[in-house]
Amino acid sequence: MNHQTLNVAVVGGTGYSGGELCRLLLNHPHVGSIWPTARGDEEFERIHANLRGSSLSFVTLEDVQARVDELDVVFFCTPSGQAMRQAGWFLERDVKVVDVSADFRFADPATYQRVYGTAHAAPELLAEAAYGVTELNREAIAKSRLVANPGCYVITAILGLTPLLRAGWADLNSPLHLSAVNGTTGAGNKPKRPIMHAEALNSMLPYSMEGHRHGPELETHLAVAAGRDLVVDFNTAHGNFARGIHLQANLAVNPDLAATMSRERLLGCLTEFYGAGAEGEFFVRVNDLAKSGGLNAKDYDVYPGVASVTGSNFCHIGADYDERRGIIKILSVTDNLVKGAAGSAIQNMNVMLGLEETLALRTYGL
Amino acid sequence: MNHQTLNVAVVGGTGYSGGELCRLLLNHPHVGSIWPTARGDEEFERIHANLRGSSLSFVTLEDVQARVDELDVVFFCTPSGQAMRQAGWFLERDVKVVDVSADFRFADPATYQRVYGTAHAAPELLAEAAYGVTELNREAIAKSRLVANPGCYVITAILGLTPLLRAGWADLNSPLHLSAVNGTTGAGNKPKRPIMHAEALNSMLPYSMEGHRHGPELETHLAVAAGRDLVVDFNTAHGNFARGIHLQANLAVNPDLAATMSRERLLGCLTEFYGAGAEGEFFVRVNDLAKSGGLNAKDYDVYPGVASVTGSNFCHIGADYDERRGIIKILSVTDNLVKGAAGSAIQNMNVMLGLEETLALRTYGL
Amino acid sequence: MNHQTLNVAVVGGTGYSGGELCRLLLNHPHVGSIWPTARGDEEFERIHANLRGSSLSFVTLEDVQARVDELDVVFFCTPSGQAMRQAGWFLERDVKVVDVSADFRFADPATYQRVYGTAHAAPELLAEAAYGVTELNREAIAKSRLVANPGCYVITAILGLTPLLRAGWADLNSPLHLSAVNGTTGAGNKPKRPIMHAEALNSMLPYSMEGHRHGPELETHLAVAAGRDLVVDFNTAHGNFARGIHLQANLAVNPDLAATMSRERLLGCLTEFYGAGAEGEFFVRVNDLAKSGGLNAKDYDVYPGVASVTGSNFCHIGADYDERRGIIKILSVTDNLVKGAAGSAIQNMNVMLGLEETLALRTYGL
Amino acid sequence: MNHQTLNVAVVGGTGYSGGELCRLLLNHPHVGSIWPTARGDEEFERIHANLRGSSLSFVTLEDVQARVDELDVVFFCTPSGQAMRQAGWFLERDVKVVDVSADFRFADPATYQRVYGTAHAAPELLAEAAYGVTELNREAIAKSRLVANPGCYVITAILGLTPLLRAGWADLNSPLHLSAVNGTTGAGNKPKRPIMHAEALNSMLPYSMEGHRHGPELETHLAVAAGRDLVVDFNTAHGNFARGIHLQANLAVNPDLAATMSRERLLGCLTEFYGAGAEGEFFVRVNDLAKSGGLNAKDYDVYPGVASVTGSNFCHIGADYDERRGIIKILSVTDNLVKGAAGSAIQNMNVMLGLEETLALRTYGL
Repeated sequence: MNHQTLNVAVVGGTGYSGGELCRLLLNHPHVGSIWPTARGDEEFERIHANLRGSSLSFVTLEDVQARVDELDVVFFCTPSGQAMRQAGWFLERDVKVVDVSADFRFADPATYQRVYGTAHAAPELLAEAAYGVTELNREAIAKSRLVANPGCYVITAILGLTPLLRAGWADLNSPLHLSAVNGTTGAGNKPKRPIMHAEALNSMLPYSMEGHRHGPELETHLAVAAGRDLVVDFNTAHGNFARGIHLQANLAVNPDLAATMSRERLLGCLTEFYGAGAEGEFFVRVNDLAKSGGLNAKDYDVYPGVASVTGSNFCHIGADYDERRGIIKILSVTDNLVKGAAGSAIQNMNVMLGLEETLALRTYGL
Repeated sequence: MNHQTLNVAVVGGTGYSGGELCRLLLNHPHVGSIWPTARGDEEFERIHANLRGSSLSFVTLEDVQARVDELDVVFFCTPSGQAMRQAGWFLERDVKVVDVSADFRFADPATYQRVYGTAHAAPELLAEAAYGVTELNREAIAKSRLVANPGCYVITAILGLTPLLRAGWADLNSPLHLSAVNGTTGAGNKPKRPIMHAEALNSMLPYSMEGHRHGPELETHLAVAAGRDLVVDFNTAHGNFARGIHLQANLAVNPDLAATMSRERLLGCLTEFYGAGAEGEFFVRVNDLAKSGGLNAKDYDVYPGVASVTGSNFCHIGADYDERRGIIKILSVTDNLVKGAAGSAIQNMNVMLGLEETLALRTYGL
Repeated sequence: MNHQTLNVAVVGGTGYSGGELCRLLLNHPHVGSIWPTARGDEEFERIHANLRGSSLSFVTLEDVQARVDELDVVFFCTPSGQAMRQAGWFLERDVKVVDVSADFRFADPATYQRVYGTAHAAPELLAEAAYGVTELNREAIAKSRLVANPGCYVITAILGLTPLLRAGWADLNSPLHLSAVNGTTGAGNKPKRPIMHAEALNSMLPYSMEGHRHGPELETHLAVAAGRDLVVDFNTAHGNFARGIHLQANLAVNPDLAATMSRERLLGCLTEFYGAGAEGEFFVRVNDLAKSGGLNAKDYDVYPGVASVTGSNFCHIGADYDERRGIIKILSVTDNLVKGAAGSAIQNMNVMLGLEETLALRTYGL
Repeated sequence: MNHQTLNVAVVGGTGYSGGELCRLLLNHPHVGSIWPTARGDEEFERIHANLRGSSLSFVTLEDVQARVDELDVVFFCTPSGQAMRQAGWFLERDVKVVDVSADFRFADPATYQRVYGTAHAAPELLAEAAYGVTELNREAIAKSRLVANPGCYVITAILGLTPLLRAGWADLNSPLHLSAVNGTTGAGNKPKRPIMHAEALNSMLPYSMEGHRHGPELETHLAVAAGRDLVVDFNTAHGNFARGIHLQANLAVNPDLAATMSRERLLGCLTEFYGAGAEGEFFVRVNDLAKSGGLNAKDYDVYPGVASVTGSNFCHIGADYDERRGIIKILSVTDNLVKGAAGSAIQNMNVMLGLEETLALRTYGL
């Protein structure tokens, strides 16, 4: 393959994830053409003003299909239900597929049907879809032609929790409590009154408290890390920022370990898992700053801050321990549009194609 | 008492709570003079620019003491440890005291010492201090000369949780999980780098994850409502807004009630407890809007929003139920400086003095 | 008139100005019933969540008309063109009218037609409409049955500039340069992509740079203050806040006064005009804090800040002078929904009815 | 030179500009080591949390000097007065210097003295310092060993105004009116009360209205473009965002051209000057979207938005024309820390070293 001439399509190029894919792919040294699709006659620069002058313009899905011979990779940034109908057509024509939507995240079609309320249209492809948390599933992704990019909340949680769950430090007879605050880009770019600036500013918008659609995805994939079933009490809100996920997980400590658990031990577990420095995972960084003060000193910098990863593919993780109540606290932050969507998608593309994994993704957060 | 000539002092008038007391008291029809104190030579209008032209100016504590004969009420907006040293002096001179600090919130001096790390200086006053959640403790407050104004997080939680706890609907063998996002005014007005605009904007600042100082206050006062001991897993952060507390509580449902629990039943419990319309509690309003859509319809308006109560003494409460996992969710929002501090303090003053309870506090949120 | 039983209608009750009128009128001691109108079947509390539990609900314009005998005042918060068709009907039935829309702001129907592109439907009423800058036109308003509430930008500019213009301190052979940043509530509450939270956050949205519709209103009414024609270079943008107008006016100094002009002199002119303390205009406050430092000391507090008047009917005004270039700078800030709309409307109602002018409006900014 | 092993120092690495230089240099393919300096014992990751895990740490200026033999480029991000004392030492040792501070921006030492109030310490270097607006001064920069990086406001203004000034379309007998809103990172990272989150949120902070220090820099360098002296009425404020400059310039039209001036003509002038597509200036993009509506249609997207360039080295420029009043309006937006500081500094370094100009800088805005 001539890496200089990779041609990629972004099906669903008008949304925030599609625009972010274009933004990042424009800096990919091996990508030649980028074909974002739109259904109507939208002007690319009116939708994605940050990419003014990039010379990108929208095409139709049919345009992409007509040039499938030149195409190397297709990304789906479409509503649920579309990728599962179209992925097969591209795979048959030797195009790699990265699905940023939810269509290939469950190996079991019955789970998909239960969560999304409709039968899966391509159950035969589910088994071969690699689940795209790159850091945890690199080998399978490298061999795959179809990657299911994880949900933005889910990848943030999985990266934060897997080390602890694998180590068996949580008491999984109690539910895991997850509370996540997402930027308003996570609500999509279709105008609706509650997400207007004058309405959402200075507020918090909790939603889907009766059970978020990503709850089962969390339960399925965290169970893999834990080696057993578990229950996730998952809570979501949009916060007063445009990008980023601030996720906190509270877990009852394994009673056998309660006596010896500590903040330092938790941080050690994370650091050992992900490594550090040149040896470590490039995109996962553990905040292990020491506390400088006593109780209530408010050392805000000992926890990761979502603004630190904005615009980047990084995930920052921190931890603490409420000794009096035996509760482990994990904090994990990402940019919902990058590590939570477009960045992971490109990272997975890089791995699938045997490219250096961090290409187009090394920019640090603002 | 001639209500037209109430004179009040605000000890600790340079902070956000003190400024907010001045702001609200300026609109109190029965308050004549307001004496905010400062230690140095601060100019009132440089500290509280919103009160420009109000003719208020700082005095010293000594100035207040010298005019104690004219004084009716003193508010303490001071750091922990000051009110307990000075309240007695004012009480002996027939001045009512509302302590906005934490000094009189525990009946038991041993609890105070455990949480604040120092012996209580006026243990003899603790027994007579009325705990100032006005809606739940109105009679005791009316009879009291000393009110312990609750912490901002605590009053927000107590108002949201008391109906359910009294009804016995939660399984208290599991910890209550509380997650609260406070505005940055909650971090005080002393300049520190993490709460600078350029740092805190678009972020979330979790803090005190090892156990927040208000945890024991929550456990003590929620235990009263529940009629038994309980454990509170309490989590706090500052969000990207200046004012307001967005608090969510997750409780395991009482197993005996799991089969019949529902969002509607929870809202019914809240509405029955607080009443509605002209008969109901003026400052507590239940969001019982019906959901208009199906799963994930994102009816953001069925939950209370913190921006709706900004600038007001209202507490809005909502609820939902995760049936699949048996988890009750309560949302409660207040303005941390009003219902969480200065507003409640004035509400308590009104009750102590036999005035109409809502005086100076009826303004709706923005 | 029995002040306890004033009944008022808010025609166009679904927008931000209409909601703000309801919010403020709920605290008016002499207002009995408030009838906000809507065209469809909107639920009041879904539109104005901050007024939850207020017992207000929408009625139709026909409902209001059917009860016109009980009605004292009608406010129009409608798009241009509606009030001029309906005001006459109410006036004939002895109902006072405050038009918050633009229909009665020009005495000359030809100017209206030029600016709004359509003939005025009630030219016979224009002459009797009092222009509602209360502080400058109190007597005419008191005698009037129809008040034209000024545009939010215009009242902010007029209050800031009138003292200087009357004093003849500006060189009006050059254009006045006005630059105003408005909150996003000023863009209305109809969902549109550019004013979504994720789009407008952290940005500025300039608009109508070819000439804003309020330019002629400014030129007309500032010419009255100046006693001569003048040209206003008027520039507008929405900023990253929901409420408030931050307006700056730059004026070439009258060459005859250049040698003696100074910041102190400008502030003196403003203070003399509006008075101070108990004698002064209650809602207009001049920021005359002294600068504490030298060049570039960044004494931010010597200029008024828009956040200081949020939620209030106050206008804060400040000034400075660029001696090197001979340019007078006036800063004037208001809340666009209060002093810029609903607050002034109520202030004018109070004056029309002979009530104390500040009723329902004394709350200080946040 | 072995490009793979460029070693660079960032003197003054604790501020926002210094941190931004580190952030961008970490992605520079030819930079080996980065040595940011600090005076005390600050931990790098506590100051620049976004760069967690980057393995950078602070050194002292003495450390840098001791390794000057290995050093290729030194950036000064220091307060005024430091670079002019130290630049010579580095130049003598064949180290290229990019001064991000203000020390070398005036060719005339007398001007420096007038503006900064102190004599210049290295007047002999002023003549050889190239002024670092790369797009306009590329050849001189390429030949230089010392670049004076322009002020953030100034580069934003120069890029927007130069085409019009060179074309002679403005009437320079009237002052240019410039109004710029900067993010709060522009106020530095030293904690001060007015720039705390709770104070600056939802507000605007005008400052230095008596004459901003960058006014003379503007007047000096815009005069070069105009070929004559001119007066700049320069107005600055911090807005409610952390990064970015939103700058608007209003210019009286040259009377000879008034009859034929139009928005389209202005945009044509800008596009012709900067080019477009692969031929054009990479970092300067003109917003020439057509208006879709009539008067007051509020086509917000026809003007550049500051959020579109956040995090990037781009400058977006737009224009409009107030025909009625003969006023040209230019809008120019940049990220104050990138194009306004660290990005330009690296762009200039690339040009000085003969590297591809866009290295490390191609990332698009968020």
